[in-house]
Amino acid sequence: MKLETMKLLLLDELQDLYSAETQITKALPKMAKASSTPELKHAFESHLQETEGHVQRLEKIFKQLKENPKGKTCEGMKGLLKEGEERIKGGGEHDVLDAGLISAAQRVEHYEIAAYGSARTYAELLGENEIATLLDKTLEEEKTADEKLTKVAKKVNVRAEAA
Amino acid sequence: MKLETMKLLLLDELQDLYSAETQITKALPKMAKASSTPELKHAFESHLQETEGHVQRLEKIFKQLKENPKGKTCEGMKGLLKEGEERIKGGGEHDVLDAGLISAAQRVEHYEIAAYGSARTYAELLGENEIATLLDKTLEEEKTADEKLTKVAKKVNVRAEAA
Repeated sequence: MKLETMKLLLLDELQDLYSAETQITKALPKMAKASSTPELKHAFESHLQETEGHVQRLEKIFKQLKENPKGKTCEGMKGLLKEGEERIKGGGEHDVLDAGLISAAQRVEHYEIAAYGSARTYAELLGENEIATLLDKTLEEEKTADEKLTKVAKKVNVRAEAA
Repeated sequence: MKLETMKLLLLDELQDLYSAETQITKALPKMAKASSTPELKHAFESHLQETEGHVQRLEKIFKQLKENPKGKTCEGMKGLLKEGEERIKGGGEHDVLDAGLISAAQRVEHYEIAAYGSARTYAELLGENEIATLLDKTLEEEKTADEKLTKVAKKVNVRAEAA
C-alpha cells in the first residue's frame, strides 16, 4: 500500500492486525495442546477467547470505516508463529518446552502491544475516538496477557532449571 | 533443537538473537536511507552502531559458553523486516512513510525486548551472572531505542496527520 495519508497508514496497520489476530486464533489451540503446565494451558485457552473478541472488535472498526479487513498477510506474525511451531515440533523436557513456549508467546504479545499502540495513536490523531477506544481496550488486554505469561514463567522457569 | 535442558533453551534463544541482530544490521541502513526526518535518520544510524555492539556482545557470550553463534535463522525477525521492506517499497508521502517506518521499527524493538528479557532470565537462573549482565545491558539499550522512536514519532505523527 502506498502510504499517502495517515488514514491509509491506519488502514494498513488494521489490516496487518486483522491478519495477525486471525493467525493467532489458529496457533493458540496448538500452543495449549503442546503445553504441560495446567496454568499455561489455561492461559493459552483463555487468551484464545480474548483473541476471538479482538477479531470481532477489528471487524466492528472496519465496518465503521466502510473498509475491507482482508487484503494483507501479516508477515511478522507469520514468522513469529513459525518460531512457536518449531519449538513444538522440536519437543523436549516438559517444563523446558513450556518455558520455550512462553518465550515464543511473549514475542507475539509484544508484537501486538507495539502494533496496537501505533494504531491507537493514529486513530486518536485522526479524531476517530470510538475506534481509538476499541483499540485501547485490546491493547490493555494484550498487556495483561503478557503479564500473566510472565507470572506463569516465574514458576515454570524454576522447574525447568531443575529439570 | 530439542529443548532438554534450560541451558539448551538459553542457547536456542541466543542463536535466535544472533540471527536477529545480524539481520537488523543489514536492514537499518535501508531504513535510514528511506526516512526523510533527519532525527529519524539519525536514530536509525545510531541504532546501527549499537546493534553492531550487540552482535559483538553475543559473540563474547558464545565464546564464554564455547558454543557456535550460528545455526539458526530467526524467522520472527525475517518476517518483521519483510514488513519494513514492504513499507519502503510501497512508498508514499514523506511524513506518513516515516510514521510507518517508526511503527515497523518499534515491532522490531519489541521483539528484542521480549527475547532479551527471556534470555537474561534463563542466564540468571543458570547462575551465568556475567552473561546475564551482558544481556541486561543490551536489553536496556533496546528499551531506550524504543523510547527514542516514540519521542520522534510524536513529532512525525502530527506532521503526517496534517499531510
